[in-house]
Amino acid sequence: MSIARVHNLAVSLDGFGSGAHPSRDAPFGHAGTRLMDWFLPTPTFQAQTGARERVPVDPAAEADDRYARRSFEGVGAEIMGAGKFGPPGWQRDPAWRGWWGEEPPFHSPVFVLTGSPRGDLSVGDTTFHFLAAPPREALARAFDAAQGLDVRIGGGPSTVRRFLAEGLVDLLHVVVVPILLGRGSHLWHGLEGWERDYAVAAETTPSGVTHLTFTRAAQESARSSGA
Amino acid sequence: MSIARVHNLAVSLDGFGSGAHPSRDAPFGHAGTRLMDWFLPTPTFQAQTGARERVPVDPAAEADDRYARRSFEGVGAEIMGAGKFGPPGWQRDPAWRGWWGEEPPFHSPVFVLTGSPRGDLSVGDTTFHFLAAPPREALARAFDAAQGLDVRIGGGPSTVRRFLAEGLVDLLHVVVVPILLGRGSHLWHGLEGWERDYAVAAETTPSGVTHLTFTRAAQESARSSGA
Repeated sequence: MSIARVHNLAVSLDGFGSGAHPSRDAPFGHAGTRLMDWFLPTPTFQAQTGARERVPVDPAAEADDRYARRSFEGVGAEIMGAGKFGPPGWQRDPAWRGWWGEEPPFHSPVFVLTGSPRGDLSVGDTTFHFLAAPPREALARAFDAAQGLDVRIGGGPSTVRRFLAEGLVDLLHVVVVPILLGRGSHLWHGLEGWERDYAVAAETTPSGVTHLTFTRAAQESARSSGA
Repeated sequence: MSIARVHNLAVSLDGFGSGAHPSRDAPFGHAGTRLMDWFLPTPTFQAQTGARERVPVDPAAEADDRYARRSFEGVGAEIMGAGKFGPPGWQRDPAWRGWWGEEPPFHSPVFVLTGSPRGDLSVGDTTFHFLAAPPREALARAFDAAQGLDVRIGGGPSTVRRFLAEGLVDLLHVVVVPILLGRGSHLWHGLEGWERDYAVAAETTPSGVTHLTFTRAAQESARSSGA
């Protein structure tokens, strides 16, 4: 049974998944890299950046990497919000091809939710499809494209929140970073009691973050519920 | 050097330290005991309730108890908000003597911040003093009463938030419970960047909660800053 998964979504202690005022120069807004500091030293991220030489890996990052790499296992398609694909206004720039250079780390179809769709865009071995579709419809499209593998809801926080609110996420891995961002895009608004149908596992790693993994019983997966 | 400390303050993943609509029948409002489930099985809480017989302690509660009991070590006075002393409206009930029966677990002077002060109240070996004072002034009073020991800021969340906002807390122990309360009294509002002057340690325990301990350098303690 293929499922819908969220991985590596870092949130501050006050619930913000990215900072205020994201821009081309500051993709995470005033948060800078503070939500990502646990992720950047992991072998998974280092490999994503295409580092050719072997980067020495801090042993302290090993525990974080066990989580980081799951995001890339068994995933056949990704859904992302417009705010992940580019800075505010990228829709008006026909030359914008995403943040990831010529070798995006997706290696599978990506569905970008945007009110201003455009034609498909292939970069490296990734094809970006642009959709103006509600979450459930986008998820059905992504499951079809994933060919039996899972679908990753890739973010940002407001996109994940919409999928959570509609009960469309089977596995949610969030990383609680003990900082107070104060403003930005909030993950948890409007989700009172959301955790009820999920089992949760918690682990703190040497980097000081807490990995929380919420898992829903497979028989109630987003796909079987009609997505 | 005596310091101002907060212990055992449980918050939901979305930052609420107690639920909405607290009342005499539901001191934590719609949260019920969900923020306390890690604490109730600890020997520290069991002893507080004055259980005469030995209660069998779940070994899983041992890790939580290491944190729970620190709240009672080296403390010479407590400050609490009106909302911790009683349900909304207790100020109009001259017979209200707190939630804790005839043996309150404080064993030291308690300063209750309220806009409607009354005369001192002694219950068991605890004396409650009622103060209409801003945080810094209340803290100075409590330090004097603590006779060289530390002062505990006992809650609730809105009271702790006021002390945090004024830089009056030297040690903050919060317990992140992986639930989404959605509404209630929020701990983190208005505290962007508060963590900057603190070192933080994180530990997840078998109960599934995460203990975060923020510690400020002693030389900048709330007391030396003029409290």
